[in-house]
Amino acid sequence: MNNPITVEVTRGKLVESRHRGLAVVTDGDGAIVFSAGDVDAVTFPRSACKAMQALPLVETGAADAYGFGMKELALACSSHSGEDEHVALAASMLKAAGRDESVLECGAHWSFEQPVLIHQARTLEKPTALHNNCSGKHSGFVCACCHSGEDPRGYAGYDHPLQAEIRGIMESLTGTPLGRDNCGTDGCSIPTYAVPLVALARGFGKMATGKGLEPVRAAASKRLIEACMAEPFYVAGTKRFCTRLMQVAPGKIFAKTGAEGVFCALLPEKGLSFAVKCEDGTTRAAESMIAALLARHFDKDMPEHAALMAMANHSMRNWIGLHVGDVRVTDVLFG
Amino acid sequence: MNNPITVEVTRGKLVESRHRGLAVVTDGDGAIVFSAGDVDAVTFPRSACKAMQALPLVETGAADAYGFGMKELALACSSHSGEDEHVALAASMLKAAGRDESVLECGAHWSFEQPVLIHQARTLEKPTALHNNCSGKHSGFVCACCHSGEDPRGYAGYDHPLQAEIRGIMESLTGTPLGRDNCGTDGCSIPTYAVPLVALARGFGKMATGKGLEPVRAAASKRLIEACMAEPFYVAGTKRFCTRLMQVAPGKIFAKTGAEGVFCALLPEKGLSFAVKCEDGTTRAAESMIAALLARHFDKDMPEHAALMAMANHSMRNWIGLHVGDVRVTDVLFG
Repeated sequence: MNNPITVEVTRGKLVESRHRGLAVVTDGDGAIVFSAGDVDAVTFPRSACKAMQALPLVETGAADAYGFGMKELALACSSHSGEDEHVALAASMLKAAGRDESVLECGAHWSFEQPVLIHQARTLEKPTALHNNCSGKHSGFVCACCHSGEDPRGYAGYDHPLQAEIRGIMESLTGTPLGRDNCGTDGCSIPTYAVPLVALARGFGKMATGKGLEPVRAAASKRLIEACMAEPFYVAGTKRFCTRLMQVAPGKIFAKTGAEGVFCALLPEKGLSFAVKCEDGTTRAAESMIAALLARHFDKDMPEHAALMAMANHSMRNWIGLHVGDVRVTDVLFG
Repeated sequence: MNNPITVEVTRGKLVESRHRGLAVVTDGDGAIVFSAGDVDAVTFPRSACKAMQALPLVETGAADAYGFGMKELALACSSHSGEDEHVALAASMLKAAGRDESVLECGAHWSFEQPVLIHQARTLEKPTALHNNCSGKHSGFVCACCHSGEDPRGYAGYDHPLQAEIRGIMESLTGTPLGRDNCGTDGCSIPTYAVPLVALARGFGKMATGKGLEPVRAAASKRLIEACMAEPFYVAGTKRFCTRLMQVAPGKIFAKTGAEGVFCALLPEKGLSFAVKCEDGTTRAAESMIAALLARHFDKDMPEHAALMAMANHSMRNWIGLHVGDVRVTDVLFG
């Protein structure tokens, strides 16, 4: 099917570029309350599902054993910007498990955020694995292994017991069989599994409500979601969209982006779960889509609604500050 | 109409993201020899049409008066990376006209290219207008004004005589009436005009063949295209796609990208002109599209064909070098 145009980018009086997308919202029972596009098509959640991948860190008792608080749990679910605070916290998590960055298998990269990259260029010869946007998640993996007495070496591999455990968790949450056929390798080298977008939404919905989950998993899910909402800086970073979304309504919105235009979000109090994918993989469109869908569930008179709509529809300015065009969502998201 | 999927991005065994696009190839008479998608739809050429915008620099005699060679003309048509050589050459062009960077109206930004940005961060407090990717074009504008005895102040504005002249040139080349209704403001603050993609291809085709152009314009067009092909580093920069495309077949390929997924190219010896637009504005797709279309016009046994197809279809590796997926063009571009 042709997925609908969900976001337009204008210049002058004309539309310059168009993004097509899939979007789904499910309620506390997993029922679809809104959908656009082919939401049964499989999508790699990429980093959007990091909170699911962080469950072993809590469920094994590693987080408690190492004394991790909200910040550490948020970082374990993060795609952080590599700011100094993120890097230091990831290092301290590894230290708690008696390890250091040499155990990380995610590879190294400079920050994707320009101001952070400039700071890094001025203070580092080159980045380490601790600067990788996934270093919090990987540090969480290492901690889960160490606390369980498992050798963390090879923890990123498909056949390592940790990845097998995560595969089982994600199968259970999404209700989708996962294996080599729907497996890809993520940027940080761990397996990522393509699932229907609606299954991804339902999986996060279970984390929000705990419905159908074992008590240990329900409690771990609640704790991770609450940690992200409490420490949004540690889920992404300064001026990042995930962080800003969660700052709009503290404690009421969970949000997490993934590469190639994926975004997941929760309104835990309402049991609502949101998942979007921009067909072409563009982040700006996924951001506008998720903000617009979230806005619909806040009263139009409330500041949260206005703040979210301002994140969905926003103007673009050029290097000298002239207004040149707009990014705006289409009516498809308000059907 | 629904534009076709022209580029797919895979991960594991699955397609992760899809790009739709428009593409057109015209011959030396402006006849369409290939098209895909709605090529009559209007597209902002953005920086892809810089060679058209550089015509006054040559036609007024400014380039000769200031002693500009191939490198300066290439830079006047460029979206450069802000490497030291680009910045120094833009400064020297302004100096030839008795001006300096304070006259530039393009604004300042850090390089878009990570290695250059890291170098800039380590050597500059902040970038100036000379580091703007459009500083060569703007320096050419200033030189054209100064040589003609026109005050360059306000040269970026719609009503300045220079922009009126460029508007006339682009109307003539594209055969499209240009005015406030199809005008937008570009990132560097000059007007940009939306024209049908096929009209953009025909305009560049005229620059390649000189057919239907006054002798002065035909000569200036030939000189600019040849300068870009002779000095591809000054049209973009180290490892940039425009530069690499022109290096594949020196003197045979002209290529220029524009923001929001536009790419134009010429095979001047064959009189062929190429224009593509990725519907969603993504550069990676425009790059693959233009490389694949160019490849079709080189013998399959020749190294140029293989080199261009390797730029159209290429693998993606993650931070530790694992192959995670591919960017590949679809059969639509080989219809």
